[in-house]
Amino acid sequence: MTKLTAVLSPAETTADPEALVTALAHQARTAQRQLAAMPSAARAAALRLAADALRAAAPQVLAANALDLEAGKARGLSGAMLDRLMLDEARLAGVADAVVAVADLPDPVGQVIDAYTQPNGLHFQRIRVPIGVIGIIYESRPNVTADAAALCVRAGNATLLRGGSEAVHSNRAIHAALVEGLVAGGVPAEAVQLIPSQDRACVGAMLTASGLIDMIVPRGGKSLVARVQADARVPVLAHLDGINHTYIHAAADPAMAEAIAVNAKLRRTGVCGSMETLLVDAAYPAPAALLAALIDAGCEVRGDARIAALDPRVIPASANDWDTEYLDAILSVAVVDGLDEALAHIARHSSDHTDAIVTDDAAAAERFLNEVDSAIVMHNASTQYADGGEFGLGAEIGIATGRLHARGPVALEGLTTYKWQVRGQGQTRP
Amino acid sequence: MTKLTAVLSPAETTADPEALVTALAHQARTAQRQLAAMPSAARAAALRLAADALRAAAPQVLAANALDLEAGKARGLSGAMLDRLMLDEARLAGVADAVVAVADLPDPVGQVIDAYTQPNGLHFQRIRVPIGVIGIIYESRPNVTADAAALCVRAGNATLLRGGSEAVHSNRAIHAALVEGLVAGGVPAEAVQLIPSQDRACVGAMLTASGLIDMIVPRGGKSLVARVQADARVPVLAHLDGINHTYIHAAADPAMAEAIAVNAKLRRTGVCGSMETLLVDAAYPAPAALLAALIDAGCEVRGDARIAALDPRVIPASANDWDTEYLDAILSVAVVDGLDEALAHIARHSSDHTDAIVTDDAAAAERFLNEVDSAIVMHNASTQYADGGEFGLGAEIGIATGRLHARGPVALEGLTTYKWQVRGQGQTRP
Repeated sequence: MTKLTAVLSPAETTADPEALVTALAHQARTAQRQLAAMPSAARAAALRLAADALRAAAPQVLAANALDLEAGKARGLSGAMLDRLMLDEARLAGVADAVVAVADLPDPVGQVIDAYTQPNGLHFQRIRVPIGVIGIIYESRPNVTADAAALCVRAGNATLLRGGSEAVHSNRAIHAALVEGLVAGGVPAEAVQLIPSQDRACVGAMLTASGLIDMIVPRGGKSLVARVQADARVPVLAHLDGINHTYIHAAADPAMAEAIAVNAKLRRTGVCGSMETLLVDAAYPAPAALLAALIDAGCEVRGDARIAALDPRVIPASANDWDTEYLDAILSVAVVDGLDEALAHIARHSSDHTDAIVTDDAAAAERFLNEVDSAIVMHNASTQYADGGEFGLGAEIGIATGRLHARGPVALEGLTTYKWQVRGQGQTRP
Repeated sequence: MTKLTAVLSPAETTADPEALVTALAHQARTAQRQLAAMPSAARAAALRLAADALRAAAPQVLAANALDLEAGKARGLSGAMLDRLMLDEARLAGVADAVVAVADLPDPVGQVIDAYTQPNGLHFQRIRVPIGVIGIIYESRPNVTADAAALCVRAGNATLLRGGSEAVHSNRAIHAALVEGLVAGGVPAEAVQLIPSQDRACVGAMLTASGLIDMIVPRGGKSLVARVQADARVPVLAHLDGINHTYIHAAADPAMAEAIAVNAKLRRTGVCGSMETLLVDAAYPAPAALLAALIDAGCEVRGDARIAALDPRVIPASANDWDTEYLDAILSVAVVDGLDEALAHIARHSSDHTDAIVTDDAAAAERFLNEVDSAIVMHNASTQYADGGEFGLGAEIGIATGRLHARGPVALEGLTTYKWQVRGQGQTRP
């Protein structure tokens, strides 16, 4: 228990966090080159061995998890936090299964994006290659240790993992098991590293490690993502908010509109794809029934004046509501006068995550899909489908709302980049 | 001439550069949405009108350029700098022709990257969309004003241009003509803006305008690119160095090796694709003739001990030489013992721009093309082919050596991103 105390002490410091991160990143870079040179099937086989090792290490992982839970209770972590932290036999089996599922995904590395020959005989080919060294910064969920490492390894990337202090023992036990399996499969141990220090300065060192770490993926709550986005000099793949809109157009089918609105808001309120604002066209014929369906299902509705006039249970919305991600059974609702006003509201308030239109008017739908500039735009579907699995991408490392590299659900392809291979027969440029 | 004095004064300041850049970027964002909603053919037609307007404004542009040249001479600019700054009838016609060539390029916007239907009937489509607002920061060449603006507009992006103070009158005249033509073609004037102030703090404000400017492209010398890369919080598309290697493998054909080495180094020594280091395999049969070909062609060779032993004209290389981009008729040359040593040297010293192998051994070539992790890797061709035009991409905005978004020559496709369009029939997520 001395170790536990040391780890959880907010005063823990590392003599030189930058030097530590630099050294680990250099090791990761070297290991990544070896990993990338392995055949795809060997990387997949090593991940299956890692899953086996994780299953075999269940007693150690669960014992480590018990230590974290005990310390978390002593620190007064919330029930939700303890639940995210908690592993049992079933959850751990799920984590191992997820590693196998990633091993089974098709490998994007080596895919040919373009191939053509120029008149001078030079042959050009653009092929997918791993990004390199990816830093994952995450909070209490210990399954991220396995999920993120598996996705990175599948696409030939080395990873530096920095988990939250509340899960430190669980993360170390999972990491040790994974590496044991990976090494048995020929992957260098340094390809998957867990930052050994809980010093917060290590996070800062990762965020500024330009040229050493190629991309950072934060996994966790809004304050973590905000800090990473604010401080990072390394490119970050993330979303801060999911302020998602559903626009009920004048030509929406009322039964479909109600079903989609209720599902988009209430299926799970805590996920990033949940709807946070409902826009109802002034010409939509059944707004009161739509509101009643939501309120009757347990949703608090905060509406503008025209919405408030429709149902006495509506709470008047304040200006903040249009920019709030509730992640709860609360919804802001506004009336808009036509598609243009809906597009303008979304352009102003959307967090560029997922926005949807419900309508039977094909032309209105096409304008919405083309002009709303979010990572995901939907027609006649619930925003809760914003998920890599639902998109058929297999596992996802996260959803990105930035504009460069990858947008929306990011899976294996988003963990790759490309290079140009040029094959000649002695060409010199005139 | 009062204006000229004011503009060139290093003491010029703007009361609030951040507020200025923010206001311009907001205007650009609004204009970009209108630009993106225009049909592709209309954007192309507007660019042709811009080229016409530029041709019609030749007298004004050349008069403005004469002011810049006069001021540049008074400031003691070098001959090379003045040449980059100078426009004449022929050069200006070339600038206008380049705008037309960009208008003629196929439009990447709207291209479908993926399209598929999931078992639940949801249809997914990933399509290319403009990036948004792109900042271009450049030095003395006034043609960049037209080239960069044309590329951005073709792909539906708004652009904020910040040219060098030495070309301020030329840039303003070119910009005014372009905008006149674009507006006649229905493009909002705010889609192509020239930052009106020469205050250097405006550059800083552009570099930190996260969320307002989506990408920065620096065009200019190494000190400009280094400053942009160091200070930017907005993603940057650029390369700092082109420390390009050519590895003459043991199985290289001597005639081809000599022709490629001389071309890669000496065709034009000042371009980023020129070779800076030659690696000669210890088993290559004709190293002395290779060195003689280079030295006889006017190249200074700085070699390691084994190279120096081959020709009395070789200058001993220092440790710095392996990390130096000469951009001159100077070449560092080392002997390596086999492919692995060549790969290790390149991994350590390459700037990830363009690296090449010359060999008749197909297996060695494939290993090189797969394992060298640079943006462009070549087999049996001169590194001087590192150019968007030679790649068949049309005009290029630049060459990028970063790992994310776009690598190597970046043309129209690199000025786009994508979004996901999801089409349903009322699906709600279980």
